Amino acid sequence: MTPVLSFLGPVGTYSDVASLACAQQWQQENGTHLDRCPYPSIPQVLKSVEEGEAHFAIVPVENSTEGSVTVTLDTLWQLDMLQIQQAWTLPISHALISRAASVDEIHAIYSHPQALAQCQEWLASNLPNAKLVPTRSTTEALQYLDQPSIAAIASRHAAEIYQIPVVAHPINDQKDNRTRFWVLGMEQSRVGTHTSLALSLPANVPGALLKPLEIFASRGLNLSRIESRPTKRSLGEYIFFLDVEADLSNPLMSSALDEIRPHTETLKTFGSYSILHVENLLDV
Amino acid sequence: MTPVLSFLGPVGTYSDVASLACAQQWQQENGTHLDRCPYPSIPQVLKSVEEGEAHFAIVPVENSTEGSVTVTLDTLWQLDMLQIQQAWTLPISHALISRAASVDEIHAIYSHPQALAQCQEWLASNLPNAKLVPTRSTTEALQYLDQPSIAAIASRHAAEIYQIPVVAHPINDQKDNRTRFWVLGMEQSRVGTHTSLALSLPANVPGALLKPLEIFASRGLNLSRIESRPTKRSLGEYIFFLDVEADLSNPLMSSALDEIRPHTETLKTFGSYSILHVENLLDV
Repeated sequence: MTPVLSFLGPVGTYSDVASLACAQQWQQENGTHLDRCPYPSIPQVLKSVEEGEAHFAIVPVENSTEGSVTVTLDTLWQLDMLQIQQAWTLPISHALISRAASVDEIHAIYSHPQALAQCQEWLASNLPNAKLVPTRSTTEALQYLDQPSIAAIASRHAAEIYQIPVVAHPINDQKDNRTRFWVLGMEQSRVGTHTSLALSLPANVPGALLKPLEIFASRGLNLSRIESRPTKRSLGEYIFFLDVEADLSNPLMSSALDEIRPHTETLKTFGSYSILHVENLLDV
Repeated sequence: MTPVLSFLGPVGTYSDVASLACAQQWQQENGTHLDRCPYPSIPQVLKSVEEGEAHFAIVPVENSTEGSVTVTLDTLWQLDMLQIQQAWTLPISHALISRAASVDEIHAIYSHPQALAQCQEWLASNLPNAKLVPTRSTTEALQYLDQPSIAAIASRHAAEIYQIPVVAHPINDQKDNRTRFWVLGMEQSRVGTHTSLALSLPANVPGALLKPLEIFASRGLNLSRIESRPTKRSLGEYIFFLDVEADLSNPLMSSALDEIRPHTETLKTFGSYSILHVENLLDV
């Protein structure tokens, strides 16, 4: 049976590009095909693996301009079985896509709120009067392009698939705009350059975060990321997501986790993995 | 001249309710009126004070279910003059608003993405087949309610203003759903129960966050919140927003900041303030 990789659809999203990169690498490493299957939301992408519909899921975790994809972190905290197998970072380079003959014709711009936010300075300079309309994905926006007065913001990959012209590219304000993705599956993953974990603290004492940080620091284990998310129980109670630069097979890591556990309410590890970087989307 | 308080419009948003609470308190304390003025985006609300159009701005900072309002943090980091004068927390209690005779008639639900997210379990149970459509504010959604097949998610306050029936209430998944707001102005604010600040670290070494946390902890100064945001320069570089339970007039705080400063690239303080809690929106 060909294994299946689930991703956030529809076809043409940046998640689709990331899933293509992942399937290509699978083919190179295993000599076999990896099927790809789109799902309509990030929780559904992740649950598809727990429910046995897919073998792997690829989801966005963090963007260099907009920060965390909070629904990914929140869903992962709720689920119990998924482990990160691999991470990818992809350049995010937005195109203005429209049937307009020139930019002046454009009166409304449709896109995912994160894409609109990532192009806000370019839009303020070049299309200050255009109406900005949020959509659920960058490619959902392409459905509205029958009229030349409407434009979408999406990848050049999406413009190619849907065969609609690119009016301007790149239009993102930060040129070094990248998104990190995680590939998750049910296999235990204990080897790689990074480990992700999350913890909640026993009392309503966020100062208690100091203890876990000291325990990692005392072993020379560096944290490459700290992110807080609400517990959703009460304002001021947090879950902390940490990325540590060491893997679970490292004895220092095991001893750090053993020492940290009694200081937490809940401690979850999401596996160890290495990070692959894609430099040019057109290479995918 | 009557002072002006800017807030995220249109009228009927939760920010509108928060601005009403703030104006009432102003009236009680000063015996004078505080005018309120809606702006279309959070950056515009905040800039209205720096540009002298308003004396104060009230903006959402954090919700107990959805977490930080990242655009507030990012804009505050970019601006240089604004100081937090006061904080408010408000219960967020969502209503399903529609001209439908019953829930079964509803085929589409319009609201701000955060409000849709906060009601996702209720919607999955009660309206599993309805299409969810994102809008720029909870009250923008009310514009689409001419057809009874459409519903909006907003406050009961908004339903009252726009005179459209409430079909179900409350529909938020977490009953203790609250949002924290900040009131900002140009006056120095050094007194209160909390101080907010933000810092970026010199090298790409997030482990360096340990030092500031230790400096606060060694003085018995508790942190009630830590939040990371991307610097927007490069994936993996962060700005940390901290709330400390002490004010700037406290000598321990001044000495902590003096000791922390050399360990940071940039250190910004956003003022000291106290927190007021509204228990029932209908009291506002």
